[in-house]
Amino acid sequence: MLQLPRPNPEQLFHTPTIFGLAVSKDETRIAVATNFSGRYDAWGMDLDCPFPYRLTNEGQVPHAMHFDPQGRYVLVAFDHDGDENAQLYLIPPRGGEKHPLRTHEGRRFMFCTTSKDGNRIYYSSDKDNPTYLCGYVFDLESGEERTLYEGEDGPTVLVAVSDDESSWVTATAFANTYQIAHLHRAGERVSLTPDPGTPHIVDSVEFAGHLVVFATDYQADELYLASFDPQTGSFQRIWAPEKGSVTHVAVHKESQTAYVAVMRGVIDELYRVDLRTGSAEKLSAPFEVMGQLKVGDSGRLYLLGASDNEPGNVWMLDLDGTWRPLTRMRPMGFSPDDLVQADVVHFPSFDGLSLEALLFRPKPEIANGYTIIWPHGGPQAAERKGFRKLFQYWLLFGYQVFAPNFRGSTGYGSHFMKMVERDWGDGPRKDMIASIEWLLAQGLADRDKLFLVGGSYGGYMTLLLHGRHADYFRACVDIFGPSNLITFAQSVPDFWKPIMKQWLGDPNDPADRERLIKDSPITYLDGMTKPMLVIQGANDPRVVKAESDQIVQALREKGRDVEYIVFEDEGHGFMKLENEIEAYRRTMAFLDRHRQASAP
Amino acid sequence: MLQLPRPNPEQLFHTPTIFGLAVSKDETRIAVATNFSGRYDAWGMDLDCPFPYRLTNEGQVPHAMHFDPQGRYVLVAFDHDGDENAQLYLIPPRGGEKHPLRTHEGRRFMFCTTSKDGNRIYYSSDKDNPTYLCGYVFDLESGEERTLYEGEDGPTVLVAVSDDESSWVTATAFANTYQIAHLHRAGERVSLTPDPGTPHIVDSVEFAGHLVVFATDYQADELYLASFDPQTGSFQRIWAPEKGSVTHVAVHKESQTAYVAVMRGVIDELYRVDLRTGSAEKLSAPFEVMGQLKVGDSGRLYLLGASDNEPGNVWMLDLDGTWRPLTRMRPMGFSPDDLVQADVVHFPSFDGLSLEALLFRPKPEIANGYTIIWPHGGPQAAERKGFRKLFQYWLLFGYQVFAPNFRGSTGYGSHFMKMVERDWGDGPRKDMIASIEWLLAQGLADRDKLFLVGGSYGGYMTLLLHGRHADYFRACVDIFGPSNLITFAQSVPDFWKPIMKQWLGDPNDPADRERLIKDSPITYLDGMTKPMLVIQGANDPRVVKAESDQIVQALREKGRDVEYIVFEDEGHGFMKLENEIEAYRRTMAFLDRHRQASAP
Repeated sequence: MLQLPRPNPEQLFHTPTIFGLAVSKDETRIAVATNFSGRYDAWGMDLDCPFPYRLTNEGQVPHAMHFDPQGRYVLVAFDHDGDENAQLYLIPPRGGEKHPLRTHEGRRFMFCTTSKDGNRIYYSSDKDNPTYLCGYVFDLESGEERTLYEGEDGPTVLVAVSDDESSWVTATAFANTYQIAHLHRAGERVSLTPDPGTPHIVDSVEFAGHLVVFATDYQADELYLASFDPQTGSFQRIWAPEKGSVTHVAVHKESQTAYVAVMRGVIDELYRVDLRTGSAEKLSAPFEVMGQLKVGDSGRLYLLGASDNEPGNVWMLDLDGTWRPLTRMRPMGFSPDDLVQADVVHFPSFDGLSLEALLFRPKPEIANGYTIIWPHGGPQAAERKGFRKLFQYWLLFGYQVFAPNFRGSTGYGSHFMKMVERDWGDGPRKDMIASIEWLLAQGLADRDKLFLVGGSYGGYMTLLLHGRHADYFRACVDIFGPSNLITFAQSVPDFWKPIMKQWLGDPNDPADRERLIKDSPITYLDGMTKPMLVIQGANDPRVVKAESDQIVQALREKGRDVEYIVFEDEGHGFMKLENEIEAYRRTMAFLDRHRQASAP
Repeated sequence: MLQLPRPNPEQLFHTPTIFGLAVSKDETRIAVATNFSGRYDAWGMDLDCPFPYRLTNEGQVPHAMHFDPQGRYVLVAFDHDGDENAQLYLIPPRGGEKHPLRTHEGRRFMFCTTSKDGNRIYYSSDKDNPTYLCGYVFDLESGEERTLYEGEDGPTVLVAVSDDESSWVTATAFANTYQIAHLHRAGERVSLTPDPGTPHIVDSVEFAGHLVVFATDYQADELYLASFDPQTGSFQRIWAPEKGSVTHVAVHKESQTAYVAVMRGVIDELYRVDLRTGSAEKLSAPFEVMGQLKVGDSGRLYLLGASDNEPGNVWMLDLDGTWRPLTRMRPMGFSPDDLVQADVVHFPSFDGLSLEALLFRPKPEIANGYTIIWPHGGPQAAERKGFRKLFQYWLLFGYQVFAPNFRGSTGYGSHFMKMVERDWGDGPRKDMIASIEWLLAQGLADRDKLFLVGGSYGGYMTLLLHGRHADYFRACVDIFGPSNLITFAQSVPDFWKPIMKQWLGDPNDPADRERLIKDSPITYLDGMTKPMLVIQGANDPRVVKAESDQIVQALREKGRDVEYIVFEDEGHGFMKLENEIEAYRRTMAFLDRHRQASAP
């Protein structure tokens, strides 16, 4: 009898995303940054009736949210239309209009924390020191700002403040794989790790009573849980997972317990670690990847958890060990079973390096035989088993999606991650080709039916693969990818510049320059013979619009088939639903057109 | 220290409204019709995690929602942009695009219920019988529609169907105060009350096992709970409240218990009545007015409850007697204490009739000394202690609001309600003047600082008071009010026409015609000397646009100061947030302008 039509894949567009999470001191309320109503805003929820109510009506992304411990305000950091220049605002506790707290045109503020009484706000900013940043404390009572430190050597961000505000920790980055941290106390500063001169990472720093607790890969390939004792100056390894890297740490001081997220390739695991004994217990969880762990004074854990077939939601791990969902973001009309869970595949690359990739296979009854190759962004990031509405959208139209975690990806140790540094265009590109060849050899894709789509570094890789290996692909989509590594290196935000040399290379160094030219997509214009779609946000501060402009112009001058979409009110990503819908629809139309037309 | 600015009253605009409620058979889900995201749609909630998710993305008002007992669909009735021609659609159980079930251009469908297995849909429609309507059952398996009855004598709506579908009840209206009901069984029909020829009301009909239970004022002035036994044909009074009228009945069959809402003037009371013994228990509740009572098989009660300072929310009365809020709609930035609770005042009218009114007094520190007189719509309705964002918006700007329940209002017995019938313009108008004079005599308002604003019948009353008593008011705002009772009587929907004679009068009857002219605002154009704002929805099926057009044109021809706003995509009320905001802002600007200018 009753046969309702299959859901329209476009319904996926309206799946809300949760971008951030805050928990009030008394754990009666949480706040989520979400595009629940189509545009991003801060929404509140009372835990005794977890139904969301609007806290702001700005239509902008809240980059940080923090409840005043005394309940007098909620601090929210908004940028404007994707420019990433987050400014600090206060809003009334029950929501309302934003009230400027710390703002500076064209500069950004990185909120750290407040004092325990909420009267002082701790943050970093590039407003006085565009390259290395400074840290500040702003006193709400006096209205005065005091500089805590001036960054040096590398961009230096305030990451933790002790309860009594007598000490704080800064993190200084020289590269994504080289970030050290210092404890500042009584005018002195001391490294949390014994030898800050050896490249390693310190991350997720928290004061835990008399100790400072953090994740580090100091003298190791993966990040483990460690501590620094300010009294004795001693560094100590607390606990290392058998496999994987510690990426998030949330400490419950009273019980000296840490909840620790461990990244194992494309999935995360959750552990509870006793800080005193270093013993750890693995906890099961109803999601595959997680982020933003917060522990309340009660000992309850709050986090964002997602799976490839279930959107990110706020979950609470209650004291009795049960997981309670606090939000229920879901794709309208789709159950998790209607969506695709990725296969996790492994294979050797051109040089024998073992690679992991996600293969999303459409339901057999709708498969169209075409495969979209997706090089992820970053490059020091990874494609993981989180919810990707773009992938699921493609899958519902019958496309297969293949996302290899090429060398340089996170989740496979620091050595692997470093392999992309100063080598953006050779090893990772060959990994992509080796991945495609493996997929074809397995009979999992058809050589004549490959598309290439990527964003950010993935857009760069798309352009480069197009320029150097066009024969593989029917058509390519570049979403805000750098096209010219020389101009790209010069146009990134000021405070990225110190890390560019190790990450990418220095255009002023002749040897580097030669490599950057060799690895720049724009060097291979002649090879870019396939139809291309380029998508760019006008306010993108990471990959500026000139990167897309120049490749589009150069290709059009050669008479190539290039469609170009610029969103005037977007940055590096889609934060406005109507833009996202347009980008996805036009990408689908582009793929479909080139699926049916142009025989290889 | 920290002083955040007072909330902007415009934040009230964004307070979501819940228009309707449905509960799934197994009580695991509810659906709400709400403008949560700015436009109306159906949203779902799972009771194990009561966080809303979108069921539809239509931007239209769901006029009915019903869960298939077998979980295969959700039935939703949408009209289009306020035209009130609700059409029946099915959507997938987890939401999605609407799938037409019963649609007919320019006609409407009134959903009644489904069969217990969800395979048959029961409804009425004006599609084959525009004046008296017909009832139908549509079989989802065969795709066939069968006519259950053809309405006669008055517009006849299907209101209840027995579990075994062997019998059903129709309600036939001759007036708002004269609506009878019949049980149809085996080709026969029998009145639920002993003498259908005596004017009385039958409402809220439910099958309760072997009985039919309903509210009626048969041989009484207020509605009480009664039953009809189809086996014996006997009518029985079950329970009557000490004071007030039964307006909603929800029966839990298994325990033979009814939850009963009793309207006592401006507030509601809730009772639990044992249908076998007629004993009743008054239940306390955390709201002042309620609607849409539903009892689940579990015995839990679900309803919409609101107060003047708290928006309508879905509440569940659990089996242990505790109230649990399932939604938390709230005005952004305002606590209930920031908003105004009305004083309930009583006074005699011109002829000694006792009137009740709501007086909303602004916080003293922001009072501006001006009073807005608000005649409510209906007229057989009432101003009650529910949430009125328009009133609270005015109050936050310092205006006082005075809303008298003139004769004809509901909540004061059938005799009182009938007093407006065939007398739209005399008694109620004199009540309004007597109310204003009482307010002035009490020193509660300033004679030189009165405005007049009303919608629908309240718009009519605004126009009439303006025409006949202009000296009282500085300026008037008419929101879709009839201006000419002759043209109004001819332009209402077809199925209203049978009740027009008793409700208003017959323009074709010479005596009625004379009275309708005497009571038409347009007769008093000369008196309309004060500035006026007229607001109208182009699709309004109740008070058609010609009603506003003609008065605006006539006044403009006389050179009067009339501002006219027409919303192209609205009907009788504001269902689109942006329109509502524009209407309220412009009303406020209009009042403010005439507050400061024109000295009396």
